Amino acid sequence: MTCGPLIDGLQYARWSEKVFRQMREGGVDAVHVTITYHENFRETVHNIEQWNRWFETYPELIFQGRTGADVELARSTNRTAIFFGSQNPSCMEDDIGLVEILHTLGLRFMQLTYNNQSLLATGCYEDEDTGITRMGREVIAEMNRVGLVIDMSHSGEKSTLEAIELSTRPIAITHANPANWHAALRNKSDIVLQALGQSGGMLGFSVYPHHLKAGSACSLQDFCEMIARTADLMGVERIGIGTDLCQDQPDSVVEWMRVGRWTKSIDFGEGSASAPGFPEMPDWFSDNRHFGRISEGLKATGMTTDEVSAVMGGNWLRFFENSFSATADISGKGPRTAE
Amino acid sequence: MTCGPLIDGLQYARWSEKVFRQMREGGVDAVHVTITYHENFRETVHNIEQWNRWFETYPELIFQGRTGADVELARSTNRTAIFFGSQNPSCMEDDIGLVEILHTLGLRFMQLTYNNQSLLATGCYEDEDTGITRMGREVIAEMNRVGLVIDMSHSGEKSTLEAIELSTRPIAITHANPANWHAALRNKSDIVLQALGQSGGMLGFSVYPHHLKAGSACSLQDFCEMIARTADLMGVERIGIGTDLCQDQPDSVVEWMRVGRWTKSIDFGEGSASAPGFPEMPDWFSDNRHFGRISEGLKATGMTTDEVSAVMGGNWLRFFENSFSATADISGKGPRTAE
Repeated sequence: MTCGPLIDGLQYARWSEKVFRQMREGGVDAVHVTITYHENFRETVHNIEQWNRWFETYPELIFQGRTGADVELARSTNRTAIFFGSQNPSCMEDDIGLVEILHTLGLRFMQLTYNNQSLLATGCYEDEDTGITRMGREVIAEMNRVGLVIDMSHSGEKSTLEAIELSTRPIAITHANPANWHAALRNKSDIVLQALGQSGGMLGFSVYPHHLKAGSACSLQDFCEMIARTADLMGVERIGIGTDLCQDQPDSVVEWMRVGRWTKSIDFGEGSASAPGFPEMPDWFSDNRHFGRISEGLKATGMTTDEVSAVMGGNWLRFFENSFSATADISGKGPRTAE
Repeated sequence: MTCGPLIDGLQYARWSEKVFRQMREGGVDAVHVTITYHENFRETVHNIEQWNRWFETYPELIFQGRTGADVELARSTNRTAIFFGSQNPSCMEDDIGLVEILHTLGLRFMQLTYNNQSLLATGCYEDEDTGITRMGREVIAEMNRVGLVIDMSHSGEKSTLEAIELSTRPIAITHANPANWHAALRNKSDIVLQALGQSGGMLGFSVYPHHLKAGSACSLQDFCEMIARTADLMGVERIGIGTDLCQDQPDSVVEWMRVGRWTKSIDFGEGSASAPGFPEMPDWFSDNRHFGRISEGLKATGMTTDEVSAVMGGNWLRFFENSFSATADISGKGPRTAE
């Protein structure tokens, strides 16, 4: 284990006391959790209500994170700070005013697309990527203003490069791996990764088997060596972990993730007709207690202790500190600052 | 003018730059504004989106208040802190989880009823007041927990007394006058006012003509002498101003307030078929620049400077400071407090 913060850049577990206790056992200080996929605004609020119940029920284990400082609070009180994110912009419907509303409710990441074309950008599964839409440009500016991070994990290449260019604040790809290591539609080209790194953005490395070379059989060593090479490509300060852990979820959930309400047919996404469900996790990572193995694996690649610490959470912490406040607050011109 | 804070316990103007500038001209530090009547949750969120636009457009005049400390921030930055309230529980629909969601969005007051029976309690215009409902008891506890003030301005007598009794935190009647001065259905009995005062609650005196003896012709002296007598009844620390100023509103708005979507007929509320619109304000109070006249009128009754200062805002400030935070935060057991 490292002595710096331990932060996971994306999880979508079937949340339970068991999972929250495993976060504590694993020393996880903060997790960006997906709270919504294709749910509209009201449905997303209902999901937040469920989270509020968990926060009320397990205050000794978890609390809602809103700022980078909440990671330090989590560490000093031995709890895990939970930061909300959406994997699709369905939650903001066609209403730019909902960007600030969702931020007020604690949303800190929002993907502009989830595989398909959205009102804002093109997903990575579309044949044609037309880039950021007219509304997408407006929403990027609004997300920049309020402090809601643009996440392009499931977006197409052109849309991702345009988002990096248009956004005045660094963006994130919270859960994906380099396509040069494993050529999946969801993994990212060197061009994207370099542009992301140069713009101050962050990549979170995914442990979801469809993103791994050799899938569920991927070795810890191979995963960690891929991280070390990506550090050379992007800069070691631009990378973190984003496991995409979907622990304990039934297969009906992966179907919702893939199909939502956009088709009456079945779409298998990264799966297939013969393997439609969640893939089996690699044997070295199945829950929040196993981050120490990744730390050890990174050390074994020759990374320094400081580098490992940065990748395991230090980089995400810096990114959280710089990303979640309104630009007006940062500039000192905000409504809560004395004039 | 007093040198303490100047706080109005309720307004529902047709908001505009003009009104916000008048707040500044009048030295108004904080206003509890009605943001919703019969609107459901999504419609209420849309109203908040409109407020967010005003906060973004006029940051030198107004900002959203969330805590008592924001009143001091308003004073130190020469702006007006705007605190949100609802006059009916329509905004929380039939979903107790929305209480915390609305509080997170900044709601600080919610009436349990607006004239009619609600899911929570009985309004002051119903023939039979059955008191707090089963759901009402649950919602009062939840409002207590999160720091959302129970406002019984438009509720029936039995419901109001039960709310005072059931609530573990002081409640408010933000805009009404004593029925012993002017016998309107919306004004309150001595029994209610004494119970309110003894429980640490607050009454805001209304300048809305239907709540005034002699209506629009009510004199400033008569209004202020009524306040002085009520101070004797309730305690001078339990009273403030709650003008119910509906400045610049078209008569279509008072119809929405009265009728909402609960009837296909017309209900004239406090008005009548011959006078269905907003009544004319008394000549000594028509906008936010005129609070100084009330201060002067109170001094003329023989109140001390400290007493006038308390009534004009000091009492509301203390109430705000004690009412808007979650009980868990107050008790030191909250999720954001080190353990």
